[in-house]
Amino acid sequence: MATLSIPQPVPSPLEDAEALRKACQGWGTDEKAVIEILAHRGAVHRTQIRLAYKELYKEDLVKRLESELSGDFERAVYRWIFEPLEREVIIANIAVKARIDYRVIIETACINSPPELLAVKQAYQARYKRSLEEDVASHTSGDLRKFLVPLVASHRYGGEEVDPSLALTEARILHDAIKQNAFNHEEITRILTTRSRFQLNATFNRFKDEFGVSVTKGLSSSECPDDLLSSLRVAIRCISSPHKYLEKALRNALKKPGADADVLTRVITTRAEKDLKVIKELYLHRTNTSLDHAIAKETSNDYKSFLLALIGN
Amino acid sequence: MATLSIPQPVPSPLEDAEALRKACQGWGTDEKAVIEILAHRGAVHRTQIRLAYKELYKEDLVKRLESELSGDFERAVYRWIFEPLEREVIIANIAVKARIDYRVIIETACINSPPELLAVKQAYQARYKRSLEEDVASHTSGDLRKFLVPLVASHRYGGEEVDPSLALTEARILHDAIKQNAFNHEEITRILTTRSRFQLNATFNRFKDEFGVSVTKGLSSSECPDDLLSSLRVAIRCISSPHKYLEKALRNALKKPGADADVLTRVITTRAEKDLKVIKELYLHRTNTSLDHAIAKETSNDYKSFLLALIGN
Repeated sequence: MATLSIPQPVPSPLEDAEALRKACQGWGTDEKAVIEILAHRGAVHRTQIRLAYKELYKEDLVKRLESELSGDFERAVYRWIFEPLEREVIIANIAVKARIDYRVIIETACINSPPELLAVKQAYQARYKRSLEEDVASHTSGDLRKFLVPLVASHRYGGEEVDPSLALTEARILHDAIKQNAFNHEEITRILTTRSRFQLNATFNRFKDEFGVSVTKGLSSSECPDDLLSSLRVAIRCISSPHKYLEKALRNALKKPGADADVLTRVITTRAEKDLKVIKELYLHRTNTSLDHAIAKETSNDYKSFLLALIGN
Repeated sequence: MATLSIPQPVPSPLEDAEALRKACQGWGTDEKAVIEILAHRGAVHRTQIRLAYKELYKEDLVKRLESELSGDFERAVYRWIFEPLEREVIIANIAVKARIDYRVIIETACINSPPELLAVKQAYQARYKRSLEEDVASHTSGDLRKFLVPLVASHRYGGEEVDPSLALTEARILHDAIKQNAFNHEEITRILTTRSRFQLNATFNRFKDEFGVSVTKGLSSSECPDDLLSSLRVAIRCISSPHKYLEKALRNALKKPGADADVLTRVITTRAEKDLKVIKELYLHRTNTSLDHAIAKETSNDYKSFLLALIGN
């Protein structure tokens, strides 16, 4: 389901490190060569290139590329070059700092499976000497904190067992709270942050059966469009249909004038080695335009070439 | 630091299984033999006995003992016979059911190191097909829930790094909240549930330096002695001095008329293979009476013999 294309046979990490060094030397940088190499190598191979480069030139490849490249292209390379876990941790850390980007935190907490989220949290601690939950907690406040911290902290059950009567009970609890516009209701937080993905999907289905509308629609018809309400919707969509959520994130990013490079880069770099093919198909189905075409139209220069290479164009 | 004494050479699990079968057969049960065997075997050996017993007699040893024994003795054997992780999970599950025993949940969350707590939560899910946090969340409400759920959910940083200026800032935040009797203040919850053990100890020390009183004393001089206040104190004591906390738990249990067998059994079975020697020394130092003497005085019959065997009498 990945879109990444890797040439066969793939050059050795040593050859790649030498070619990258060459691309970075002299007047200007050979961005085309950088893309040709990095956008066509798997995670393990990229790490081996970094190690070989360090060994050969006593220099950090990531730092060198940061100084050679610029703008959206530089940031995209900086996201892409890491292994998936390292990348997620860096993205989460950037998101908690300063004004929190709660969407990123919710994606981390709700798209990952429980063991994946645990691995992210452990890698986060190893890198930053603090826990992700304590960083989220100390950079948020009020209702948003009350929702985000347990969302990140909770180690959900990962099994497929579902309790159907619980699903009905909790669908009703959600409906009552939404009807009263009580979005900070502690029962909403409890249900969304502690129940397993399978149990929650059963609850969302019962919600639709009972009340004739999806729980996210129920939430969006409500007034008071603040961060909390939007967070609840993002969490529900990341839990119930992560691929559709990511497709819509790309669609919204490409609709913005000049495109939202942060979102575009994040979704493409995190999914290119995983399931971007599925997301591309959903995009085509929803917009009647290929993702390749939309990206070619809305982005430019090396950034465009890099993204197109990652999505398998 | 364990108090458990194991004979050398130790009989094989097969011999032990046969001896236990003999103890359970015919008129009455030979409780002495049960104690002689089970109270002098390590966790792995006990599991091997259960397996050998099952293999030999097509019967579950735990169930057989439950039907043969009774009262506090039976419950103590039922706690002791399992391996530590299994035991913790069973104890936590009993504690969340019906009216929640919040002390047990706090002990699980705060005495265990972060990797130990994670192991407990994973074993809990494997056994009950639900997460510990969702069970705690659905059996609590109000302020107690708001404190207990993140306490259980949070995967704290386990390293020793401490930020001294943060410790001072957060000591002051705690002090302000306590002064206002705002025990449900979200900052108290944030600090106690997300910061690492080392960071919290630095914070508690700064509290004492700045305000001339320990944070638990600060809390106990406050009015409003409810579950939340008591929970805060238990959490702080389990984080800052688990051995002293457990010593006091034993002391209080032994002070009650007839002794609080639940607490007595829990502390002794969970620590006998671990660090009960340290706790015994603290007890002696604090009361000028040996724990052996106090237990012999306050308990009776097989229950007494069993506990005394576990504490190395």
